Amino acid sequence: MILNWYIFLYPDKTFNSANSDFSRQQPKEKLGFQLKTPKGTKDYNEKEMVVREKMFLAVKEIFKKHGAVAIDTPAFELKDVLANKYGEDSKLIYDLAVQGGEACSLRYDLTVPFARFMAMHGKTYQQQMRRYQIAKVYRRDQPAMTKGRLREFYQCDFDIAGQYDPMIPDAEILRILCEALDALDIGSFTIRLNHRKILDAIFEVCGVPEPAIRSISSAVDKLDKLPWEEVQREMTEQKGLEPAVADKIGAYIRLQGGQQSLLDQLREDENLMKNKNAIEGLADMELLFGFLDALGIRDKVTIDLSLARGLDYYTGIIYEAITIDGEVGSIAAGGRYDNLVGMFGGRNSKGKPSLQIPCIGVSIGIERIFSILMARQNSEIKSNESEVYVVSVGDGLLKERMQILRELWDAGIKASFMLKNKPKLEKQWAACRKDQIPLAVIIGPDEINRNEIRLKDMRFKDESQGSGIVVKRSNMIATLKSRLQVL
Amino acid sequence: MILNWYIFLYPDKTFNSANSDFSRQQPKEKLGFQLKTPKGTKDYNEKEMVVREKMFLAVKEIFKKHGAVAIDTPAFELKDVLANKYGEDSKLIYDLAVQGGEACSLRYDLTVPFARFMAMHGKTYQQQMRRYQIAKVYRRDQPAMTKGRLREFYQCDFDIAGQYDPMIPDAEILRILCEALDALDIGSFTIRLNHRKILDAIFEVCGVPEPAIRSISSAVDKLDKLPWEEVQREMTEQKGLEPAVADKIGAYIRLQGGQQSLLDQLREDENLMKNKNAIEGLADMELLFGFLDALGIRDKVTIDLSLARGLDYYTGIIYEAITIDGEVGSIAAGGRYDNLVGMFGGRNSKGKPSLQIPCIGVSIGIERIFSILMARQNSEIKSNESEVYVVSVGDGLLKERMQILRELWDAGIKASFMLKNKPKLEKQWAACRKDQIPLAVIIGPDEINRNEIRLKDMRFKDESQGSGIVVKRSNMIATLKSRLQVL
Repeated sequence: MILNWYIFLYPDKTFNSANSDFSRQQPKEKLGFQLKTPKGTKDYNEKEMVVREKMFLAVKEIFKKHGAVAIDTPAFELKDVLANKYGEDSKLIYDLAVQGGEACSLRYDLTVPFARFMAMHGKTYQQQMRRYQIAKVYRRDQPAMTKGRLREFYQCDFDIAGQYDPMIPDAEILRILCEALDALDIGSFTIRLNHRKILDAIFEVCGVPEPAIRSISSAVDKLDKLPWEEVQREMTEQKGLEPAVADKIGAYIRLQGGQQSLLDQLREDENLMKNKNAIEGLADMELLFGFLDALGIRDKVTIDLSLARGLDYYTGIIYEAITIDGEVGSIAAGGRYDNLVGMFGGRNSKGKPSLQIPCIGVSIGIERIFSILMARQNSEIKSNESEVYVVSVGDGLLKERMQILRELWDAGIKASFMLKNKPKLEKQWAACRKDQIPLAVIIGPDEINRNEIRLKDMRFKDESQGSGIVVKRSNMIATLKSRLQVL
Repeated sequence: MILNWYIFLYPDKTFNSANSDFSRQQPKEKLGFQLKTPKGTKDYNEKEMVVREKMFLAVKEIFKKHGAVAIDTPAFELKDVLANKYGEDSKLIYDLAVQGGEACSLRYDLTVPFARFMAMHGKTYQQQMRRYQIAKVYRRDQPAMTKGRLREFYQCDFDIAGQYDPMIPDAEILRILCEALDALDIGSFTIRLNHRKILDAIFEVCGVPEPAIRSISSAVDKLDKLPWEEVQREMTEQKGLEPAVADKIGAYIRLQGGQQSLLDQLREDENLMKNKNAIEGLADMELLFGFLDALGIRDKVTIDLSLARGLDYYTGIIYEAITIDGEVGSIAAGGRYDNLVGMFGGRNSKGKPSLQIPCIGVSIGIERIFSILMARQNSEIKSNESEVYVVSVGDGLLKERMQILRELWDAGIKASFMLKNKPKLEKQWAACRKDQIPLAVIIGPDEINRNEIRLKDMRFKDESQGSGIVVKRSNMIATLKSRLQVL
């Protein structure tokens, strides 16, 4: 339960997740324009930031457990770098205005920048790297704020680049995905898995013309959202496929069964097993499931022959994690892309790519998971970490409070006070409670004269505390620190 | 020494800070365009990221110690939000291309977005907030990469918004700045401090016409880089000031002395003390130094009447931190800006701003400090956190290695292995050493049969370790964990 680290229940408070006027826009009249964030973007308030930071921390820990390093790339790239990578989604790319100089675009994902990075710096790393990157990406999509679909959003990527033996990095990536989703504490999930080569083999044996394969593939990808009849209609009416071919595809991709049973059905299909892609894809899958067994995550994975994934650049296994109760759809996705880095390496004299660094990666849908976790919060989120509030009784005692704060801060204690000369007592208590600060140090003229303070533990409504426990000034730091350990 | 948290010296390695070909661009021939990051931007490699993350963590800890919450705002804002905020620097703002929809620009700093945030959401927070934000900002400036001046760079801001009593938040901000610079371990520094009201009073009594004040102020601001004669020439020849007026200004802003002596000199100046701004500014300063005393940082601050700061929106004290050896110039800066939020609130029927939330803030020049810290690193930076490397002797033992890794990962141990079926022994050792992994778990057929592993501590060149210490498989996790605590 990572979200409990800095959260504690405060008496008499209930959680108001709504914060309902937070995203309210200001009226236009007075200002000449409407005061708001750009379409599809939002401000994150302090409670949302607590949850987000905890999520990032949890995921980073898992990535580091698997030997990853962090890198960072600019938020925008040369327009040429992003060109011809995203198919028809390229229209969603944000361009910067050309204000004299290079044509640039905001990054659309973290995968293409990583491939560009490996093409530029791969030599420094012997063409191998396991890196994570958590950063914002930008898409001029139609926003659906309530579903967590924004124009500016975080991606959380882990990739393994390098030439290794078959299916070993693939198995580790799936293990990492399982560990990360467990660490995020989102509940039960399953990973739908397919292989581009098996899918391509199905298209080939069913008789899809080679140039139409990616287009038919993206129709298949919609089967989780649309009934088969509509997908079939897209294939035939929109994309001109023979109805008989579409029917054959439909029969394959709707095959059901456990891992072994599905693989067996494919292996027994003589027609399919004459296809080179099918043979290779099946061998990969059988190898992979052996490794998933050794890594203890075989039962988290189901084969789904209808999973196609939108992006063109995948070349091997593809996968998508979904929550079991299925409320939000895909919460992570990825696949193997062996040729993307090579697209930045140019071609040799024989017209072949002169650089190849095979890669596999996963992108965790941190915004969707964030929506789930925020909706699930049923306790107040403490967004500051203040531990001690310094209260004065009587005549303000501003410099005296400052001297106490200096001691607290010097000792590394998180402390605050009211920034007023002569604050009213009730207002100080209200501020302390509002910020859910667990301990209060109280001073008045008497305490100052006697070199004492009074200490009140705000977490307990304990009458015996009265107006606070008297503590010698020289014991103040030690007493506070031992109290804070109880926290 | 925050940078030592995950860094340790590895035998026989020296630090190669150069990584000299890291930013090398790829030739253009093969690709049709030059493979590089956009002008003024850079990739951060894994070692730079370790240093950067540690810096952020250190600074965040200080901010949280002072009760701050985090917020996040979009990387771009409506163009109208940034308009008329940055004077002649507005030409450096990056615009997004208008692709149908609103005109937007990348943020130029974090202050204006924070003011926009407070204007929109201030009510939710009773017009008060202490927030930090660490995020990238964008300026189409002439880059000077070696000096750390980039077009995309991080800012690290802390601000206190709200109506409080005079100079109390101001004193705490300076205390926070001192703590943050100490935490970053940059060595000795001093804070140059001035007050906009005193500066304005000087301009007024010297006879600068009111409309010219900000322009003359920005000439004064160059005195730390240019000799007085050149600043004087800018005032008179470029900006049309009477030479006699410039001379009077020169006499004031070059006044030298300790805090009290300087304040006394100003107070004894009858001419100046007839000026309302001078009276108010001096009162502020005297109050402030009393508070700085109580907070234990008075000796870190020097008054510098020539400090003017470029931005127009400051209204009270302004300040800038510099390292004592002065190698890199300003490493942090800020000031009080009481009217910026009001610029987003429109005006009431009497033409006055209908919203006012006074603010004070500081921005830590994290990129410059990063350059100092990177240059100072003289030990190898371990950029991965791997603790254990699993090595097989003999026939690969891939699944056996995977089963061990599964146990290690389940136990939360950061572990890796070579992603090959039958890796050569020397290559495994080389990988373990390259990643500076402290412990190796070794298995061969004999160990597997006897339910044992062998353990080797790579940090010690200890002959008695021989080919490793034999450990029962059932004790493996406990033994590794206790070894790792020695780390």
